[in-house]
Amino acid sequence: MPFDASTLKYNEAGLIPAIAQDATSHEVLMMAWMNAEAVEKTLETGKVTYWSRSRQAFWIKGETSGHVQELVDFRYDCDQDCILVLVNQTGAACHTNRRSCFYTAVRDGETVELMKPMGE
Amino acid sequence: MPFDASTLKYNEAGLIPAIAQDATSHEVLMMAWMNAEAVEKTLETGKVTYWSRSRQAFWIKGETSGHVQELVDFRYDCDQDCILVLVNQTGAACHTNRRSCFYTAVRDGETVELMKPMGE
Repeated sequence: MPFDASTLKYNEAGLIPAIAQDATSHEVLMMAWMNAEAVEKTLETGKVTYWSRSRQAFWIKGETSGHVQELVDFRYDCDQDCILVLVNQTGAACHTNRRSCFYTAVRDGETVELMKPMGE
Repeated sequence: MPFDASTLKYNEAGLIPAIAQDATSHEVLMMAWMNAEAVEKTLETGKVTYWSRSRQAFWIKGETSGHVQELVDFRYDCDQDCILVLVNQTGAACHTNRRSCFYTAVRDGETVELMKPMGE
């Protein structure tokens, strides 16, 4: 069946959460938001493109940092209200220069930092 | 540093997205929502507990289906607005009886079903 980006379910702001997972290591790298046009751009260009809620603009991941996400597979869930992109991640996915944004764990009630910024 | 669930960032409905990932296979299983109390329950009980937006009630994953998620590690992201739980998943994570909710891919403009319901 042909895919139509408008059939996904967007929230009241027109956005859908998108999880980025490393296609090789399977590490979950980050979660950000897309609108229907960002979904189309991601599929058309093969460069994962989000919608920046703070800047209210398209956010071609890595366009300024070089930390691009090359699309390997585009998936969505049973409720059509969440996207999973498998990606080839160049460098750090996180703006803190860590490979993944999910570098903080809670263990025995304490927060634990799981990884350092890359190159340190 | 002691963890305080109230320091996470919740949306206007008091909810934060939570991604569940299989701790062994690293498959991304599903995404659902938690409120601060669901975060606390998840950490206290070791049973992943969401907030059901449709039922407006706590949703101890697998309580009725038996498809429980045993918490292995609780993580959150740099912006404190998304949770990642690593879990031991019993059976199917998806209500369609598939292992993962992300069973639909978009390839060359077409939707492709990646997995069948379990036991079929």
